[in-house]
Amino acid sequence: MRVRIYPLALAKIVKHSTAYLNREVAGLLVGKSVGQVLEVWDAVTGEQYGTAAYVHLDEAVMTRVAEQLAEEGKGLYIVGWYHSHPGLTVFLSPTDIDTQKRYQSMYPKAVALVIDPVKYAQTRRISSLEFKVFQISKEGKVVALPVSIGVQRSKLLESTFHALGTFDVRQLNSESQGMTRSGPAAVEEDGFLGKAKKLFGMRNVYDG
Amino acid sequence: MRVRIYPLALAKIVKHSTAYLNREVAGLLVGKSVGQVLEVWDAVTGEQYGTAAYVHLDEAVMTRVAEQLAEEGKGLYIVGWYHSHPGLTVFLSPTDIDTQKRYQSMYPKAVALVIDPVKYAQTRRISSLEFKVFQISKEGKVVALPVSIGVQRSKLLESTFHALGTFDVRQLNSESQGMTRSGPAAVEEDGFLGKAKKLFGMRNVYDG
Repeated sequence: MRVRIYPLALAKIVKHSTAYLNREVAGLLVGKSVGQVLEVWDAVTGEQYGTAAYVHLDEAVMTRVAEQLAEEGKGLYIVGWYHSHPGLTVFLSPTDIDTQKRYQSMYPKAVALVIDPVKYAQTRRISSLEFKVFQISKEGKVVALPVSIGVQRSKLLESTFHALGTFDVRQLNSESQGMTRSGPAAVEEDGFLGKAKKLFGMRNVYDG
Repeated sequence: MRVRIYPLALAKIVKHSTAYLNREVAGLLVGKSVGQVLEVWDAVTGEQYGTAAYVHLDEAVMTRVAEQLAEEGKGLYIVGWYHSHPGLTVFLSPTDIDTQKRYQSMYPKAVALVIDPVKYAQTRRISSLEFKVFQISKEGKVVALPVSIGVQRSKLLESTFHALGTFDVRQLNSESQGMTRSGPAAVEEDGFLGKAKKLFGMRNVYDG
């Protein structure tokens, strides 16, 4: 499997992660599966709790995003998640592996994008971007997938139009209520799995 | 001369114009000249006064944008303007021609992008996009320039990162103070020309 990420999705992840260099941030990847390619059209975020080496995304974000995508009916669904490792380099920690396994148990093609925003924040050069997209293989190994930037004209425009419509600058530019709250929401494993199952199940409606 | 517009610039223009289908909206095109190609990397807007068939962009917007671009030092400058003709089709009115002549007198490569957002607002299909980019020829005729979508990878990412940084969703998503004020700012022709001359003059710093 390969990953194709469209520019505004990547730009939103870069913007989000470079805005918070002293703590991890996280969000969801939105896109679709086309043959052997997982296309990432958008990146969305919401309420979360992050420290220098940990981030928890409120599960309500996933519910909200999945519901919006279902309403839009554009054939887009949640295809994974992203999070930042500021200054820590790009890898999956044991906790990240557990999280990613949960995503893959719901949607086998789900991916984990990890970005270290520090170098890019210093140089603002494309060549300083440090990110990788991971999956867990059937053998339980962490595998970095080949990633390319989407440039096909109509998808480029469609993905940009879509991702611009879902972009909430207020969430990224300000330390708003959701972004700074002092503790994570209570998370029940069953709650996560139950909801995630329902949400990823929705993809079958689109992913024909 | 040809025009190459990068996706987020176009998406911002589409979003802005489709948000206001009962009045014209306007903004500035930001980019650079590369050989025979005028590249549009970003579209920015600000205080303006618009009716169903008229729009005036506050000249202070131009000053602010030019100053920001100069500070950033990325080699980007104001390369023209955009405005919408909701339901009126895409052309330059006599007033538009006068405005465009003023832009060209300051910066000969300046272009005017005109968009009719109505069909796209109804269908949300890329194929329904109706826009053209105009210039006034030396003979005084209105000429539509060939336009393509920029897809070169590094410029695609750079332009998207740049345009995401200047995007102020609040201006587009809400009828904020500046967007609805009931009268245009007083405009003196000398003031416009004087300021514009100074601002377009800045491009020489970059456009070497």
